[in-house]
Amino acid sequence: MAKEKKQPRPKAQTPKGFQDYFGAQVEARTEMLRKIAGVYHRYGFDALETSAVETVEALGKFLPDVDRPNEGVFAWLEEDKDWLALRYDLTAPLARAYAQHRNDLPNPYRRYAMGPVWRNEKPGPGRFRQFYQCDADTVGASSVAADAEICAMLSDTLEVVGIPRGDYVVRVNNRKVLNGVLEWVFSRKNEIDNPSNSKLPHHRVVQKMYSENPENIETKKLNVLRTIDKFDKVGESGVRELLGQGRLDSSGAFIDGVGLSDTQVEPVITFLTSKGENTAATLENLQVAVGDSDIGQQGVAELREMADIFDELGYGADRIVIDPSVVRGLGYYTGPVFEAELTFEVLDDKGRPRNFGSVAGGGRYDDLVKRFTGQEVPATGVSIGVDRLLAALDAKGRLDTTAAGPVVVTVMDRDQMAYYQGLVAELRNNGIRAEVYLGNPKNFGNQLKYADKRNSPIAVIVGGDEMAADVVQIKDLILGAKIAENATLEEWKGRPSQYEVPRAELVAKVREILNGQDE
Amino acid sequence: MAKEKKQPRPKAQTPKGFQDYFGAQVEARTEMLRKIAGVYHRYGFDALETSAVETVEALGKFLPDVDRPNEGVFAWLEEDKDWLALRYDLTAPLARAYAQHRNDLPNPYRRYAMGPVWRNEKPGPGRFRQFYQCDADTVGASSVAADAEICAMLSDTLEVVGIPRGDYVVRVNNRKVLNGVLEWVFSRKNEIDNPSNSKLPHHRVVQKMYSENPENIETKKLNVLRTIDKFDKVGESGVRELLGQGRLDSSGAFIDGVGLSDTQVEPVITFLTSKGENTAATLENLQVAVGDSDIGQQGVAELREMADIFDELGYGADRIVIDPSVVRGLGYYTGPVFEAELTFEVLDDKGRPRNFGSVAGGGRYDDLVKRFTGQEVPATGVSIGVDRLLAALDAKGRLDTTAAGPVVVTVMDRDQMAYYQGLVAELRNNGIRAEVYLGNPKNFGNQLKYADKRNSPIAVIVGGDEMAADVVQIKDLILGAKIAENATLEEWKGRPSQYEVPRAELVAKVREILNGQDE
Repeated sequence: MAKEKKQPRPKAQTPKGFQDYFGAQVEARTEMLRKIAGVYHRYGFDALETSAVETVEALGKFLPDVDRPNEGVFAWLEEDKDWLALRYDLTAPLARAYAQHRNDLPNPYRRYAMGPVWRNEKPGPGRFRQFYQCDADTVGASSVAADAEICAMLSDTLEVVGIPRGDYVVRVNNRKVLNGVLEWVFSRKNEIDNPSNSKLPHHRVVQKMYSENPENIETKKLNVLRTIDKFDKVGESGVRELLGQGRLDSSGAFIDGVGLSDTQVEPVITFLTSKGENTAATLENLQVAVGDSDIGQQGVAELREMADIFDELGYGADRIVIDPSVVRGLGYYTGPVFEAELTFEVLDDKGRPRNFGSVAGGGRYDDLVKRFTGQEVPATGVSIGVDRLLAALDAKGRLDTTAAGPVVVTVMDRDQMAYYQGLVAELRNNGIRAEVYLGNPKNFGNQLKYADKRNSPIAVIVGGDEMAADVVQIKDLILGAKIAENATLEEWKGRPSQYEVPRAELVAKVREILNGQDE
Repeated sequence: MAKEKKQPRPKAQTPKGFQDYFGAQVEARTEMLRKIAGVYHRYGFDALETSAVETVEALGKFLPDVDRPNEGVFAWLEEDKDWLALRYDLTAPLARAYAQHRNDLPNPYRRYAMGPVWRNEKPGPGRFRQFYQCDADTVGASSVAADAEICAMLSDTLEVVGIPRGDYVVRVNNRKVLNGVLEWVFSRKNEIDNPSNSKLPHHRVVQKMYSENPENIETKKLNVLRTIDKFDKVGESGVRELLGQGRLDSSGAFIDGVGLSDTQVEPVITFLTSKGENTAATLENLQVAVGDSDIGQQGVAELREMADIFDELGYGADRIVIDPSVVRGLGYYTGPVFEAELTFEVLDDKGRPRNFGSVAGGGRYDDLVKRFTGQEVPATGVSIGVDRLLAALDAKGRLDTTAAGPVVVTVMDRDQMAYYQGLVAELRNNGIRAEVYLGNPKNFGNQLKYADKRNSPIAVIVGGDEMAADVVQIKDLILGAKIAENATLEEWKGRPSQYEVPRAELVAKVREILNGQDE
């Protein structure tokens, strides 16, 4: 025997961080995308499909919710001159497409897009490097009515895909409010208006405010933001200490504070504790927290305008709430921000309950199109993490993950393949999913095992005798399995799971059994 | 004024060879994919979605229909160790996925897949570097019943997506037939059986056959294949000359022939002229052309088996024909090959009629899975070029490329945004596509221009007077446009295109107008 040429075989492996989706998984996602597209479309959004590949130049370096914006992209050098990359979200391509086609597009332009995006990140459990997003954005509308509309649409969408009211909440905030709080914290007027909070005499306050270096203030603002992030962990008193002189942590180490005065600390605390028992109360607290800051006032006014629209449309606190704790990607959003959180618990890998958390988010970003055109173009949008949403439905047992298998026509005599194909064709032509067994028909047991693996509801069996008598055997596999499982139970005893009918009645009988199984 | 930092703006451009798809284009494709998936599913095929990215190793170097298999892929080096690439078709990923998951998959495994593929080729008019494919393959079935099923499914699919019977034909051939013809041409038995055709005495024929170098024969076979390709151009007598001693071409230059004897030329000519007036005649001619070649006989027998199935299922020559001229990618397919051609003419860019041509193709390939597992796994499948199919429907005016726009609620008083949003919500909640105008409402003309650009069927107009009276103005934009176009015609004169109704009747009136427009 000739010696086989030794060539190492390629590994049959998806690249790390990528995965294959089978049958019902694919169908469930397709169906979800179809439902989401239906809602988006009803809201007046038009489909846009850009290609997966963009120039690196056009994509830019914006990744929402990521601190290292320069990383995370699959890119390659094309013919030694152009860098191309896979899109990492659907927003950057929208900005490019809008800038490219803006003269032909309606203004404002409402568009939706759905498809995979790619992130060149370390994969982990449940974290994949390709996943689906489903976005809707309105470009060219500066009114927060556009933002409110998207929040309402997000709420509708979640319910349409199977998250019932009460199991989710859309939280809304406005970046201008936080910016306003920061502005107010470091404003001269705050110190002057609230001298009692200051440990310095009045003229020293004024002097200090004038002398503080703008870069210093920016550093302090960042430190304030970082401290705000610790609110959940250290609570109000902890934040007070960290914003002021510092704090002994639980290990006994001393953490330096930001060095704010009490006067400066106060608006931050007011902001952090601003969530009232209703929207009006929350807005009033925020009003205080932003003090005299223009940008802050504007943020509160925008939240109020959105709240009015939610009221008018009947979206109560069971669906949409104003929530000052929503932050989302710093430096990306410029106005309203929102996210949808699933409020039910699921069990994690170790069986511990945990909140499912965020499945969608978005907000207003006014700078993406400007990169291309030089003109500021207001834009706002939402992105739904379709795969997370599917995982949530799956965790709640609300996803149909078992595909309905086909009726399997078995092959008793391989020379009669044309006859068997004819049976199958008749079933298919009547809208019934069906197939003939195409493997080696010698071992009949294998054919039934195959039907079992396919989740077949019914097997059709025709041998020489049946063919001669022009009849077919129809086996109810689901009932058969039940009978097998409960063989001792009286109720199953009398029920047949196999029927012989004239060939002409094949379709009618199959349909009758399928209808019975559905009940 | 501070001088602006000069940073070159990125170009708002899709990379060369890529394009954006808008609104109705996207919807038409989604709808087509849905219909195709419906047929595939009914035939028992299960969805599989692999990721866009594969290792270069796993993809291998197979590109059907391409002579330079090594080219044409977008690939990049990942973290200095793994080469990754975008899939160039859906078959290579299937082979990888099947090899990877084969122990969990049913056997045979019928799978369908749809999605974009990428080719790193020179883009041209109508040639894009990202395009959709829509594949169905059966892995693990050696019976040509699997191939026949796919041909029937292809025929069904074309009709379901809107190509009526008569406007397409599925042509079927078998690579074994051509291989058999070549084998017979160079077989000793051919020369011995047909000595009268030979110019050599009998003992010299035998001597020659023994002495011919195997590599020589392979070269000659390739030359025969190349000559076969010229049949359409030079006809039967031209092919005879080119297979024999050579030929004077139209420019007067002498083209060397392959150097076959008359005996050797004969089977090739029989093959090239084998298409008879029905399947039986074609098969009989092919039987002669392959002579005593085992592989050729097998190919003809397989074609006959498929023809029997087509007969039994009622797929006549108006849908599927046996056509020996179908070749498809040499060296890729190993048995049956098939392609679907649209038979109607369309006008090209210069207004000249031309055949639309092939929109789908496939066949049997038995080596792709073997690369991974070492075991031969029979497989057959079809790939539909969805974008070409859409182009075909578009060229025939059978594609709905004008999206139905939303009802546009105009804004007369921007302080009443919540009220307008309420109107829109009511329409949407009743399943009517609707939106509020979100641009700057100052110029009312712009709002109507916007509605026009959106193809809006209806505008809803509510100013202060209407609000006070609790009524709304509803403008039938389609009727309005017709009246404007035909202002002089009597029939339009009396017809109003704007209605004032109580707000409570908004939905009912809008629905009434929409229904009227549909008629």
